[in-house]
Amino acid sequence: MSFFRSRWVERPGHVSEAEPTSLPRGFRAAGVAAGLKEHGPDVGVLVADEPATTSAARFTTNARLGAPVIVSRQGELDRLRAVVANSGGSNTGDGERGIDTARLTQALAAELLGLEPDQVGLASTGVIGAELPRDPLLAGVRAAVEALGPDAKGLSEAIMTTDQAPKRACLDVELPSGGVRLAAQAKGAGMISPRFATMFCFVETDAAMPAETADLLTGVCVKRSFDRISVDGQLSTSDTVFVLASGASGVRVEPETPDELALGEAMDALMRQLAVDIVADGEGAARIGRLVVRGEAGGVEAVARAVANSPLVKTALHGADPNFGRILQAAGAAYADTADGRPFHVDLDIQGERVVSGGATAVEFGGDEWRALEEAVRAPEVEYVLTLPGEGGETEVFFSDLSHEYVTVNAEYTT
Amino acid sequence: MSFFRSRWVERPGHVSEAEPTSLPRGFRAAGVAAGLKEHGPDVGVLVADEPATTSAARFTTNARLGAPVIVSRQGELDRLRAVVANSGGSNTGDGERGIDTARLTQALAAELLGLEPDQVGLASTGVIGAELPRDPLLAGVRAAVEALGPDAKGLSEAIMTTDQAPKRACLDVELPSGGVRLAAQAKGAGMISPRFATMFCFVETDAAMPAETADLLTGVCVKRSFDRISVDGQLSTSDTVFVLASGASGVRVEPETPDELALGEAMDALMRQLAVDIVADGEGAARIGRLVVRGEAGGVEAVARAVANSPLVKTALHGADPNFGRILQAAGAAYADTADGRPFHVDLDIQGERVVSGGATAVEFGGDEWRALEEAVRAPEVEYVLTLPGEGGETEVFFSDLSHEYVTVNAEYTT
Repeated sequence: MSFFRSRWVERPGHVSEAEPTSLPRGFRAAGVAAGLKEHGPDVGVLVADEPATTSAARFTTNARLGAPVIVSRQGELDRLRAVVANSGGSNTGDGERGIDTARLTQALAAELLGLEPDQVGLASTGVIGAELPRDPLLAGVRAAVEALGPDAKGLSEAIMTTDQAPKRACLDVELPSGGVRLAAQAKGAGMISPRFATMFCFVETDAAMPAETADLLTGVCVKRSFDRISVDGQLSTSDTVFVLASGASGVRVEPETPDELALGEAMDALMRQLAVDIVADGEGAARIGRLVVRGEAGGVEAVARAVANSPLVKTALHGADPNFGRILQAAGAAYADTADGRPFHVDLDIQGERVVSGGATAVEFGGDEWRALEEAVRAPEVEYVLTLPGEGGETEVFFSDLSHEYVTVNAEYTT
Repeated sequence: MSFFRSRWVERPGHVSEAEPTSLPRGFRAAGVAAGLKEHGPDVGVLVADEPATTSAARFTTNARLGAPVIVSRQGELDRLRAVVANSGGSNTGDGERGIDTARLTQALAAELLGLEPDQVGLASTGVIGAELPRDPLLAGVRAAVEALGPDAKGLSEAIMTTDQAPKRACLDVELPSGGVRLAAQAKGAGMISPRFATMFCFVETDAAMPAETADLLTGVCVKRSFDRISVDGQLSTSDTVFVLASGASGVRVEPETPDELALGEAMDALMRQLAVDIVADGEGAARIGRLVVRGEAGGVEAVARAVANSPLVKTALHGADPNFGRILQAAGAAYADTADGRPFHVDLDIQGERVVSGGATAVEFGGDEWRALEEAVRAPEVEYVLTLPGEGGETEVFFSDLSHEYVTVNAEYTT
């Protein structure tokens, strides 16, 4: 099956798929089982061997930050050379002990790899508030460094928590100046065993580029991918994206060139598909939605979030119920905050069918159109387009449904 | 069982309970089955016979408004004499037809009761977007007016949807100037069969008072009751509170008197208990929480809402899991919006036990204190106190858990 599974993400013409666990030139990785989780790899290391490697990073904006985020943010984010990641513990809220564990991890990896500690990014996921066991983690880092090899299989598995399958891809990208590779490993399903929401994405390319270019591409692509998804509306303490460019292909991507554009298109498609994958892997997700909201620039985001995070909308999506009343109710609640009393005259299309026009229902409950709509919302990917009064703004959110499985994962696996 | 069931609502000393379906002097009510729902009463009428009756009202702030809210808001809200309520259809989003139905209902009730149409408040609950069948509704109004009697049994049943039981109370209140009665009928469980969230509360008293006093007491009490609850964070299109004071007791409540204070205390307890009842009757709710947030005045509300509406917090409450990491994660996400970079140094108490102190975990996972905490959160009412940096603000939210039953009610009962 193609990596580009979603109807909402097209494979750019200059992109082809390589073996999903492959890495671009200039990168090695490994994942080992260090006993942080009950089974499977739980500590991963990624290293870029080229000293000229450039990088960029993005982190959660939560005020409650995991220690790995606190420590990573203080590093040399434009010249990272390695990433150490683990599942089995997010190292969040453990005070000074947690910060020390993060710093020791960074220092050990730097020593083993011949780097400065500031060049090592960290990412931890798992239960929060509890201690992340330091000794197994450090032993895992040693073992992973010894196991470093040319593929990302172990790394992509070491960051899994409640993910149903590893999320990874490797793409061959034909730039005007030559061929480069672009790979990524991501994780996220809304939760971690037993109980925490985090997404990671590590992106590698063997293109060479200024750190500013890496940062620009990362910023744009994150805004169009991981910033546009919601499983449960819950911003994590630990969300992390690292992008590393080794330059080992010899192809240099300069700012404001067709190369930059072509690589940007490939990164965009890569990260959007991984973002959709995270939503589709949301706990218990049977069906996902894409909501497009158009209207005044200042108002579309809040409305889109309100609809995508409404448990009523999400349970309706789960039940394949074309219940557009809930969409308008959620949208109307958020719209009231910025509407200044303007009337709520909206249009709503579901799967391309106009169901509300100028604020009034445009389809008879129980009629032929209604039955067609009921059939249409049984698709695995359901699209909603909501047009509010005003112009100049448009946004989208990808979201999962709300299912029994979600409740089971989050309520019944108690400590 | 006492009406004041919640540990969070105390019966004031000057209040005693009367038969829950009783009405104060000067009121009559009825509920009839008009076929809007599959079974049971679905049209209710409340009338205040005293021409001097004063009143107050509060409505949802959603931009998407039900026709009954649109029409009621234009009425004489300080001298309402009657309320017509129905379940089986919320009359929302049906365009001009819906507005016409609401106006015709108002006009018919006014004619039958010898009132002006502007003195009739309306409240409809049920599926939205669909037509509210006009003829059965009007026939129901006629039948209900003919059936008017001295108790609120039929009225309280006619507004039920997914409510497990009618929500109603009648209190005898000893004011300094004499005894009055205070009664209310409410509905709300987060949803309506088959699918919509609405709360109503109709309050009657035979105290006499200026309309300004009714409005003041209503505003204060709504802010401390129905404004403080969340089943699923979804603001309805149809939330409505009507308060009518007939004056038939002969006891007059003047502004800024001990009478006003004493009646206010009784109304406050009445509406807070009904608000907690709505949360406890949230679809599938097995357990409810009260979250108190202290900190800067401008920040506590958003944090409290974010925590109370987090599906992670709600599933943990459902699973009796003292998972405070989720509370801090949700709080931190909202706190970041107003924190201006200030550190997230917070304290958290669960059931009176300090679990987070200065931002760091204060209880060992799996230890004795942890096990005591696990036992404590199995209670039907769980209390959380979150103390943020800063001073001057304090708020509370009552919220229900998120259960399998919620998903079933909202996903599986498709059209």
